[in-house]
Amino acid sequence: MKITASVISLLAAIPAALAVWPIPRTFKEGTSNSQVTYMSISVQGNVGGVVRDAVNRYSDLINKESFTAPEDWNKGSVKTSGSFGGLVVSVENSSETLDLGTDESYTLDIPVSGQATLKTKTPYGALRGLETLSQLVVANGNGKAIRNTPIHIEDSPAFPHRGLLFDTSRNYYSIESIKRTLDAMSYNKMNVFHWHVVDAHSWPIESKTYPELAQKGAYASSMQYSYGDVKDLIQYAKNRGIRIIPEFDVPGHTYIVGQSHPEIMSCLNVQPGWDKFAAEPPSGQLNIAKEGSIEFAKNIYKEYAALFPDSVIHVGGDEVNMHCWEADPDVQKYLAVNKNATVESLLLDWYGKLHDYVGKDLKKTAFTWEETLFHHPFNAPKDTIVQTWIDPTSVANTVARGYRAVSSIYSYMYLDCGHGAWLTNWDGNSWCDPFKTWMHVYNYDILANITDPAQQKLVLGSEAAIWSEQTDEHAIDPRIWPRAAAVAETTWSGKAGADGHVRTTGEVASRLHAQRYRMVGRGINAEPMQPLWCARHPGQCNLS
Amino acid sequence: MKITASVISLLAAIPAALAVWPIPRTFKEGTSNSQVTYMSISVQGNVGGVVRDAVNRYSDLINKESFTAPEDWNKGSVKTSGSFGGLVVSVENSSETLDLGTDESYTLDIPVSGQATLKTKTPYGALRGLETLSQLVVANGNGKAIRNTPIHIEDSPAFPHRGLLFDTSRNYYSIESIKRTLDAMSYNKMNVFHWHVVDAHSWPIESKTYPELAQKGAYASSMQYSYGDVKDLIQYAKNRGIRIIPEFDVPGHTYIVGQSHPEIMSCLNVQPGWDKFAAEPPSGQLNIAKEGSIEFAKNIYKEYAALFPDSVIHVGGDEVNMHCWEADPDVQKYLAVNKNATVESLLLDWYGKLHDYVGKDLKKTAFTWEETLFHHPFNAPKDTIVQTWIDPTSVANTVARGYRAVSSIYSYMYLDCGHGAWLTNWDGNSWCDPFKTWMHVYNYDILANITDPAQQKLVLGSEAAIWSEQTDEHAIDPRIWPRAAAVAETTWSGKAGADGHVRTTGEVASRLHAQRYRMVGRGINAEPMQPLWCARHPGQCNLS
Repeated sequence: MKITASVISLLAAIPAALAVWPIPRTFKEGTSNSQVTYMSISVQGNVGGVVRDAVNRYSDLINKESFTAPEDWNKGSVKTSGSFGGLVVSVENSSETLDLGTDESYTLDIPVSGQATLKTKTPYGALRGLETLSQLVVANGNGKAIRNTPIHIEDSPAFPHRGLLFDTSRNYYSIESIKRTLDAMSYNKMNVFHWHVVDAHSWPIESKTYPELAQKGAYASSMQYSYGDVKDLIQYAKNRGIRIIPEFDVPGHTYIVGQSHPEIMSCLNVQPGWDKFAAEPPSGQLNIAKEGSIEFAKNIYKEYAALFPDSVIHVGGDEVNMHCWEADPDVQKYLAVNKNATVESLLLDWYGKLHDYVGKDLKKTAFTWEETLFHHPFNAPKDTIVQTWIDPTSVANTVARGYRAVSSIYSYMYLDCGHGAWLTNWDGNSWCDPFKTWMHVYNYDILANITDPAQQKLVLGSEAAIWSEQTDEHAIDPRIWPRAAAVAETTWSGKAGADGHVRTTGEVASRLHAQRYRMVGRGINAEPMQPLWCARHPGQCNLS
Repeated sequence: MKITASVISLLAAIPAALAVWPIPRTFKEGTSNSQVTYMSISVQGNVGGVVRDAVNRYSDLINKESFTAPEDWNKGSVKTSGSFGGLVVSVENSSETLDLGTDESYTLDIPVSGQATLKTKTPYGALRGLETLSQLVVANGNGKAIRNTPIHIEDSPAFPHRGLLFDTSRNYYSIESIKRTLDAMSYNKMNVFHWHVVDAHSWPIESKTYPELAQKGAYASSMQYSYGDVKDLIQYAKNRGIRIIPEFDVPGHTYIVGQSHPEIMSCLNVQPGWDKFAAEPPSGQLNIAKEGSIEFAKNIYKEYAALFPDSVIHVGGDEVNMHCWEADPDVQKYLAVNKNATVESLLLDWYGKLHDYVGKDLKKTAFTWEETLFHHPFNAPKDTIVQTWIDPTSVANTVARGYRAVSSIYSYMYLDCGHGAWLTNWDGNSWCDPFKTWMHVYNYDILANITDPAQQKLVLGSEAAIWSEQTDEHAIDPRIWPRAAAVAETTWSGKAGADGHVRTTGEVASRLHAQRYRMVGRGINAEPMQPLWCARHPGQCNLS
């Protein structure tokens, strides 16, 4: 095998030992190796259940796991000159509040011999540090070791919102598959599970206000999330430092509401010709000319604002179709009586009532799709968080208007894309082709064309999105992973290291291979990025 | 919900009861329903292990399975007026020879009440009939039923070669995952597992002639197929009516041979600049100027022709790169001495020796990629089977020259396509984009532009291909299924029914949904084609 000079210099630039994904913001490593006989983790001072659960979880994981990165398979063991003497975790503030802006920083010190320390401000910093530690322990001969000790890591996320949008309406996901996804997110230090709970196709969540929604709108009685399930998921996520932000998309994408409440719907399942009224079948939107529709939306938000503790709640607002309302008899009647009104003014009033209620009555921060502000002149409250998805310039446009932005730009972040169209009688491709490779996802620059530091601070982070028209729990793992891990690193570590060097996909591929194989070992069916040969021979599967 | 006239007529055209995939060639069904209390299957006369194993397997499967197609979930049970009285299988010829042209026909009669009969010419017809029976039994209330009895089915495949190409070199697959794939193939009446065993990246199969090939070329000692594994797989496949045709691709795609036999290689892992010498890294081809290379190939074919019983063996021959040999010092030396020779004449001689050996010495039929004949003027023996992949016209071109053709046209049959490029430092798409949807696969006409019946008979069938650069056992199921099932139906049932009507994807979607959910129930992680809502509401997710 020929190793060229360019390959050698490339390898030298990558710290071999610190194969942590996402890469810590700042770290120093030494030249010794420390044997790990048993992973014992103790905690200093008072901590709550989140840290206790994590300590148990990571002790188990690290003691069970025996991981060797593909590129190291044939390299044999390293000689150890010291011995890991257990980890002591100390957490400054034991409060378990988890929300936007919760401190996730940590400092991890691993000497060549003796006790390692993990110091954090909050329980959630401890989780991040434990994940890092778990990735530092690798198989070594018949035992385990931490390489390149002493190690000093000071780490914290570049962006506070590092999410995955997960759609449980188009197809159903078992609780088990959602938990598996939360596990995988925690392995990548992601912290927001944007739960797109409902959409046109099914209403899988229990409602105590309107029990008929799930009774008539869930795919089956066995395909529903009860209050108990939801609370269990919220706690499971919290124990992994993940906020669950639910979305109840209104007023569009609501056909399924019409199964039990046709009286508040417009353009309900127009067949044929749905495509004039909706982005995909079946058509149906809340009827904004009817008082009942805003009452319905308020009641829904009231109910779920209480069930989901996060300060942020997603109110939808994407892809509303004006033709749907223009063709609605009630809307037409309203406009005939109210001469100054238009369909758009009706919609703006409707949004105004909803955002007012969510902000003032429910005391929640509204998270909304960009169309709410950009396709209609809605003057949203200034604390609204805008989810951009249509165009890369949307992020800059959002922060230029003083709003906080989360980026899910479809041409980078929609992991379901590139799978062709799904209408049964049409042999075509999808609007969001092509497939987004991990390299493409990784190369996205969330701060592109935003130079004002005040505006940069308004960019909260990114969300990879996995819309579920063509996936369900049987196909989900390889569709998400490892590509969402590319989002995880660019939002945790930023695009550049402490030295300002913008990481290239060629440089990070080996670490991502390691992360993919690590995830597989942990039960996540992440797809391989390349032939295993390429993972074993870094730099040799590059375009010359 | 509005049901339009066009939807009603569409539904009427689809036999609701006979939701069998692939659809039988000819069938009649009645208007009664028969209760199935217990599936007992008996056999008349002498049969061997293949039928006995299948009878046990299908008795277990049918008795355990409780399947309801998505569109029937809310429909409640049907009233039964008769009762299934067991199945009697009779097989004319108990010979278990399985090869190209083995008769797979069967006649299945299910009365409203009493004994059903399955009559076949060979054990393999029995397997096909049992699979059909298993798909006819559906859940009915707390029990099971066969709907629309009496049923009379006379069935046989339109094409004798209905395959899946499976690549175990780019990434490794466990025996378990291969068996799962064979199971899924049998659920779709597919009968050829084209095992692309080796390629440039790894040599995962034991060789007794050259043990060093796997020792140095397998990814790990745990990632190898022993002789025992191979024999087990061959029997497992045979029990499901599936031939295993192995491919040992020569002279290209052979870098891995150079790990143990560099002396017979050309352009071995050129870095950087591999792209001048190979379609993907690492480069390397058998050195056709060296006698040792043809000896090596002959010995390989001798060994594996004995291990694999099928009369057909695949000799590769795709994507050879002439630059690789032009740059080779040994080739250059040979050409300097032999003034009339060229690189191409060397290659033609090499192919001549190989095909001669495979045909005359080993008495096997060579299966070869189309380049062997079409990119070089190689005068292959007339019994050679040509695997076409480059252009839809290749099939017609092959049979016009009097050769038998198997179609794997990449623009329809390469199920790995549409996943973007995989070179780590390049954010691009793949040469074979876009993704091939099941509708696109289904719409392919293998007999396009072939009007001469004699030439049509030379078209043996199709193979879906799943090249493994970006997949392995953790990601494979949803990548293959249900799209390969589209190939299964068009090659078993043909494009048209007995009435000559060419089936459309809109018409078959409900049956394929059923098949997808059936496969999931049987442990195959096939991906969903659409939101479950669409599967439940046939015709409502069509483009208007």
